[in-house]
Amino acid sequence: MGGVIVTNPPKAEAKDVEALAGFGVATVSEAMGRTGLLGPSIRPVQQGVRVAGTAVTVLSWPGDNLMIHAAVEQCGEGDILVVTTTSPCTDGLFGELFATALQKRGVRGVVLNTGIRDTQELRDMGFAAWSRAVSSQGTVKATGGSVNVPIAIDGQVVRPGDVIVADDDGVVVVPREKARETAEKSEAREAKEAATRAAFFEGQLGLDRYGLRDTLKQLGVEYQSYEEYTGAGS
Amino acid sequence: MGGVIVTNPPKAEAKDVEALAGFGVATVSEAMGRTGLLGPSIRPVQQGVRVAGTAVTVLSWPGDNLMIHAAVEQCGEGDILVVTTTSPCTDGLFGELFATALQKRGVRGVVLNTGIRDTQELRDMGFAAWSRAVSSQGTVKATGGSVNVPIAIDGQVVRPGDVIVADDDGVVVVPREKARETAEKSEAREAKEAATRAAFFEGQLGLDRYGLRDTLKQLGVEYQSYEEYTGAGS
Amino acid sequence: MGGVIVTNPPKAEAKDVEALAGFGVATVSEAMGRTGLLGPSIRPVQQGVRVAGTAVTVLSWPGDNLMIHAAVEQCGEGDILVVTTTSPCTDGLFGELFATALQKRGVRGVVLNTGIRDTQELRDMGFAAWSRAVSSQGTVKATGGSVNVPIAIDGQVVRPGDVIVADDDGVVVVPREKARETAEKSEAREAKEAATRAAFFEGQLGLDRYGLRDTLKQLGVEYQSYEEYTGAGS
Amino acid sequence: MGGVIVTNPPKAEAKDVEALAGFGVATVSEAMGRTGLLGPSIRPVQQGVRVAGTAVTVLSWPGDNLMIHAAVEQCGEGDILVVTTTSPCTDGLFGELFATALQKRGVRGVVLNTGIRDTQELRDMGFAAWSRAVSSQGTVKATGGSVNVPIAIDGQVVRPGDVIVADDDGVVVVPREKARETAEKSEAREAKEAATRAAFFEGQLGLDRYGLRDTLKQLGVEYQSYEEYTGAGS
Amino acid sequence: MGGVIVTNPPKAEAKDVEALAGFGVATVSEAMGRTGLLGPSIRPVQQGVRVAGTAVTVLSWPGDNLMIHAAVEQCGEGDILVVTTTSPCTDGLFGELFATALQKRGVRGVVLNTGIRDTQELRDMGFAAWSRAVSSQGTVKATGGSVNVPIAIDGQVVRPGDVIVADDDGVVVVPREKARETAEKSEAREAKEAATRAAFFEGQLGLDRYGLRDTLKQLGVEYQSYEEYTGAGS
Amino acid sequence: MGGVIVTNPPKAEAKDVEALAGFGVATVSEAMGRTGLLGPSIRPVQQGVRVAGTAVTVLSWPGDNLMIHAAVEQCGEGDILVVTTTSPCTDGLFGELFATALQKRGVRGVVLNTGIRDTQELRDMGFAAWSRAVSSQGTVKATGGSVNVPIAIDGQVVRPGDVIVADDDGVVVVPREKARETAEKSEAREAKEAATRAAFFEGQLGLDRYGLRDTLKQLGVEYQSYEEYTGAGS
Repeated sequence: MGGVIVTNPPKAEAKDVEALAGFGVATVSEAMGRTGLLGPSIRPVQQGVRVAGTAVTVLSWPGDNLMIHAAVEQCGEGDILVVTTTSPCTDGLFGELFATALQKRGVRGVVLNTGIRDTQELRDMGFAAWSRAVSSQGTVKATGGSVNVPIAIDGQVVRPGDVIVADDDGVVVVPREKARETAEKSEAREAKEAATRAAFFEGQLGLDRYGLRDTLKQLGVEYQSYEEYTGAGS
Repeated sequence: MGGVIVTNPPKAEAKDVEALAGFGVATVSEAMGRTGLLGPSIRPVQQGVRVAGTAVTVLSWPGDNLMIHAAVEQCGEGDILVVTTTSPCTDGLFGELFATALQKRGVRGVVLNTGIRDTQELRDMGFAAWSRAVSSQGTVKATGGSVNVPIAIDGQVVRPGDVIVADDDGVVVVPREKARETAEKSEAREAKEAATRAAFFEGQLGLDRYGLRDTLKQLGVEYQSYEEYTGAGS
Repeated sequence: MGGVIVTNPPKAEAKDVEALAGFGVATVSEAMGRTGLLGPSIRPVQQGVRVAGTAVTVLSWPGDNLMIHAAVEQCGEGDILVVTTTSPCTDGLFGELFATALQKRGVRGVVLNTGIRDTQELRDMGFAAWSRAVSSQGTVKATGGSVNVPIAIDGQVVRPGDVIVADDDGVVVVPREKARETAEKSEAREAKEAATRAAFFEGQLGLDRYGLRDTLKQLGVEYQSYEEYTGAGS
Repeated sequence: MGGVIVTNPPKAEAKDVEALAGFGVATVSEAMGRTGLLGPSIRPVQQGVRVAGTAVTVLSWPGDNLMIHAAVEQCGEGDILVVTTTSPCTDGLFGELFATALQKRGVRGVVLNTGIRDTQELRDMGFAAWSRAVSSQGTVKATGGSVNVPIAIDGQVVRPGDVIVADDDGVVVVPREKARETAEKSEAREAKEAATRAAFFEGQLGLDRYGLRDTLKQLGVEYQSYEEYTGAGS
Repeated sequence: MGGVIVTNPPKAEAKDVEALAGFGVATVSEAMGRTGLLGPSIRPVQQGVRVAGTAVTVLSWPGDNLMIHAAVEQCGEGDILVVTTTSPCTDGLFGELFATALQKRGVRGVVLNTGIRDTQELRDMGFAAWSRAVSSQGTVKATGGSVNVPIAIDGQVVRPGDVIVADDDGVVVVPREKARETAEKSEAREAKEAATRAAFFEGQLGLDRYGLRDTLKQLGVEYQSYEEYTGAGS
Repeated sequence: MGGVIVTNPPKAEAKDVEALAGFGVATVSEAMGRTGLLGPSIRPVQQGVRVAGTAVTVLSWPGDNLMIHAAVEQCGEGDILVVTTTSPCTDGLFGELFATALQKRGVRGVVLNTGIRDTQELRDMGFAAWSRAVSSQGTVKATGGSVNVPIAIDGQVVRPGDVIVADDDGVVVVPREKARETAEKSEAREAKEAATRAAFFEGQLGLDRYGLRDTLKQLGVEYQSYEEYTGAGS
C-alpha cells in the first residue's frame, strides 16, 4: 500500500491567512465565485469560533489513525490538520491527546471528514474542531496512508498549504495561490454587503437593489391577487 | 416555468396566532390529532426560542434565491417565511442580509427546507431560524418560482396564512381555519397534561392513569420473572 | 404478538456503576477492547453531562409508547431507560411527562433509538437524554412489545442490568458481568492516558512514544520532500 | 385521532388517463412545467413497466396497514393505490395478498411511500409496484387513519382522483383538473423531442439548437485551450 | 483487541433448515411474531433466489477482511456466511475468490452488513449474496476480530448456528432453538394465507375477513361522501 | 462565476484505455493500491456492462444542464462523460436526447454524480450509464459552470483525459499518466488471482495461502471451542 509523507510543502503566506481570518466562511466562498466549501455534513463541535490556518492533510485507512501520528510531526504554528479516509468512516480518529500535542505546536484546529471524540474536553481546552461525526469508536495503527498529499472531501480538493477557514457555517478551502486575491475580494464583498445591509435596514428591497423585477418579468413570473390565483383553479 | 407571486392571501387572525404562541410544538400537534409536523430533519439554529406567526411561502429552484427576494416584499408584521425548493437542496439560500430586511418588517423567523448561513450572526441579532442544513453555499438569481402558493414539506402542506409554531422540538403548521380551535384544544390539553404531571410527580403510573394494564392483558403481553424468562429458553 | 415484561432482572452492582461513572465513554469503550458503543447517530440533547446507570430495556412498536408506560414501573434508583423499536422510527416516544415520573423514581436518564420531544423542558429539569432524533410526533398505545429483554441497537446488544455510560461523545454499554473489570481497566487506561498527555504536552511525538516509525517503514510508507513528490509526477 | 374514509371522490376522466399512459414520467413532468414528481427514493420493484391510473390515497400509521384494508373497498377499475404514513416508515405494509385483491378489482398498481414485500410474487403476477423500501416487516391493524384525503409525499400533494403515471424513472402526479391539458402538452413536447432527437442524431448540437452559445457568453463562460488554462495557474 | 474464533458451535438441525427453505422471508418473520428481520438496507445482488442455511458469523474491523479468511475454514455444507464490522463500513470485503472457496465447501450464500464486489461474477457462478452496499473498495488483513460469536445487525442478533433465510425481500434470522417451531408455524401461516388469497381472489374484503369494520368504528374512523368531506371545510 | 470550457486536454492513449477495458473495476482499483474508486452510491442503470474511456468532465450548477450541452461539443470517440454539480443534486440532468447525441459521436457512456432519466430508453439503445440517482426532474439552462476542469466526486479527483472504467461494481478513475502502468499491474494481478482462484477451488485456505495464521496469532486472536467460549462467561 505504501503511501507517502511529504515534508515542507509550500504554504500560503501568513499575512494572507491572517487577512482571511477576518472574514466568515460564506464571505470567503462568495469571493471565490461560490466555490471551495466542504459540504454541510461537516459541523463544528463548538459554537461561535472562527479559525483560519494552513492545511496539513492526512489520508488514513478507515478505523486507523496511524497517519495522524505521522502528521503531528509535520504540523506547526498556524496550521490546521485536515483528515479524510480512503473510504467513508465515522470512527473517532481524533481526540484530546492529539489536540494536546497539536495545541502545543501552535496548530489552530482540526477538520475531520470522519469522527471525533472527547468533544467536551476539546471545548474545555479551546481547541477548535469540525467533523462529520462524533464517535468514541477507537482506532488501530496498522495500515499505511499519506500525509501532505492532495485529498478530496465533498467535491473539494484540499492541498497541503492551502488556507482553511472554518466557522459556525462550515469549512472553506482557499488554494494557496489564491489566498491574497481571495482576501482582497472578501474585503470588497464585505464592504458591498455592509452597504446592502444598511439599505435593507432602511427598507430597500432586494428586488429593487438588484434589479430583479425585470428578471421576474423576463422569466414569466406573474403577480396575482389571491382571488385571481384561486379563481384560476388551484 | 413561469411561476406566480400571490398577493394578500388570507391569514389566520392575530389573536389566534398569539394564543398558539403560548404552547409548545408538541402540544399544538397533539391538539390537532398528532398531525401538522414538519419532519425531524428541520432543526433550529438557536436554543430555547419559540415563535408563532403566519406563513409566507416560497417555492424556489435549487441553488437559487430569486424568489426569496420576491417574497420579502410580501412579508409583514407577524409573518414567518417558509421556503422549500422544487428538488432537494442543502445550499445556503438564506442569511443575515435577508434576516436584516425581514426583522425590520416585523417578520418573526424563517423555516427553510434547505440550507441557511450566517448562523452566528442570526443568533446574535435574535432572528429565529429553522433549517434542514447549515451551509455557506451561495446561490444565483436566475430561475423563476412562486410565492404564497401551497407548498409541501415532509408530508405536510403549508399554505400562505397558515400558522407556523416552532421551538426546540421542531416546526408545526396549523391550517389557518383551524387556528382558533387548535389554540383552544391546546389549552385543554395543557391543562390535562398539568394534571398528569402532578400525578406522575406523586408517583402514579401511566399504566394506572390510562388504564393500560387491561390493554397489556388484551394484547397478550405477559409478566415473567427473570428466572421464568431465561428458563423459558432465551 | 404477545411480548413479555421481565421483572427483577439481575443488575450490575451499584459500586461498579459508580466507578464507571468516573470515566468518559471513550475511555470505557477502549477499556473493553474498543467495543460496546451505540453508533454516532445517537446524540445527547444537552451538553456537558455524563451519566452512568443500569439499563431497563424497552422494545416498542414504531409510533407506540405503550411499553414505556409498562417500563416505568420496572424502573428504580440508578437505572437508565433504554428504548428501541421493532423497526426504524423517529417519532417522539418520550417527553417530559415520562421524565417527571422517572426522575421521581431516581432514574438517571434515557437513551432512545428513536425520537424525543420536550427537549427544552428536559434540559430545564436536568433529566439527561440521548436520542436518534428530536421529534414532536406523538404516539399511540395500541400494540404490545417487551420490557427488560435483550435489545440490539447499532450492532450492540443491551441487556437489562447492563451498565450504560453516556456523555457528549455518545453512549456505551458494559455487560453487567464485566462492570468491575471494565472499571478497573478504565482506571488503568486513564492513568496511561494521563502520562501520554503529559508527554505530548512536553512535545514527545506519538511516532516515538508508540514506536510507530518502524511501523511506517514496514508498511512501506516513505518520506519525500515536496520537490521529490511533485517531481515524481503527481 | 379518528380519521375519515372519503367515498366517491371525483376522478380524472378515463380517456385523459389513457392519453397520459402514452407518455413517460419525464415527459409528463416537463409538460407540467417540471413539477409533479415524487422524489427519486421511490423506486419500481420491476423493470420496463409503465402504468397510468387514478389515485386512491391512504394515510396510515407507521407499522399499521389497517387503512389499506379500508382502501381496497374504495378501489376499482383503473385506479392506482397511493400509500403514505404519518411519520417515516419502511415496513412492508403491502404484499401479494393485497395485490391479489386489487388486481381482481382492476387496479393497475401501487405506489408506497413506505416498504413493500413479496416483490418476486408481485413481479410474477404482473402487479406493478413502486416503493421507498423493500421490507418483509409485518404490520398490525390497530390505529386509525384516512382514505381518499389529500396526502403529501416528497413535496408533492396527491389528491384522490389525480392521475398517477409511473415508469422506470419514477412517479409523477397530475392534478385531475390538468389531466387533459397535460396530455396535450405531453404530446406537443414529445413531437418536439422527436425533432430534437433527429437533429441530434444528425449531429446538431444543443448549443446551436437552443441558442446557448449566447447564453454562455452572457454568463461569462470562456473557452480556453488546455495550455491557457493550466498556464493560468490552476 | 484479541478476538476469538469459536469452533464447532451448535447448529440448527438440517431438516429444520430444509423445512424453513420452503418459505419466504416474510412468512418466516410473521411466524416468529414479526421479528427476526435484518433491515431493508441489506439487499440481494441477484433476483429470484431464495436460500436457507446455518450462520457462520464474522465480526471484522472496517476495511479489513482478515477474519473472513479465518471464517472460511469454519464453514461447511449448508452454512451461510454472515459478516458485520465493528463500525459502519461499505468496503467490498467479499468477492468471487471467497465465493469460489465457499461454494466448493457447500456454503449456500453470504450476507454482508458491509460491501460486496464482483457482483456480476457472483451472479454468473450462482453464488447467492445480500449486502448493504456494492463496492470495489479493497481491504487489508491487519486487524483482529472474531468468528462464530453473536453479532448484531440492524437490531437483530445473529448467533452461529442460527438459521438464515434470504430472498428478494431481504434476510431473516431464526434462533436455532426455534427453527422447528418456526417451520411449523410458517406452514400453518402459509395455509392460512392460501385461504385468504383464494377469498381475496373471490372478492372478499379484508375488512370483512378480519372483522375490521368494528375496529374502524371503535377507532372513530368515519365514512364521508366527498361532498361531506369538502363541505366540512378542508 | 464565469466558468471555463477547456478544449483539447491531453488524454490517455487509446491502446492503454483498451488494455484497461479488459479488467474489472475491482482489479483496476487494486492495481492502483486500492485507490481511484468513486463511492458505492454511484450505481449502474443496466446490468452486465463494462466500459472504459477517457473522461470529459463537467461541473454544473444544481438543477441546470447548460454545461452538458457545452460538453457534448468537446466529446468524441472513446470518451466517457463525467458530470458533477457544485452542490449535491439528484435531478435528472441527463437523458436519452443527450445519449443520442453522444452515441453518435462515439462516446461510450456517462457517469453522473447526480440524477439520470429515460433509463429504459438508455438500456434499449445500449448507452451505458452510472448515476447517483434516477430522477425525471427536468432542469434549466441558466447558470454557468465548467467543462474539462478537474472535478472531485466522493473523495476522488477526475481530470479530463483520465481513464474511467465502470462495471456492475461501480466506477474507477485512472490518472492518465498511470494508464499504462495500471493496465500492466492489472494484468499481473489478474494472473495472480487466477492462481488463487484455482487454489481456492482445490480447497486451499486463504489462511495458508497468505500466511495469515501467524498474523492471527500475533494479533492475539485465539481459537476456542464453543464450550470454552460460552463457559468463559459471555
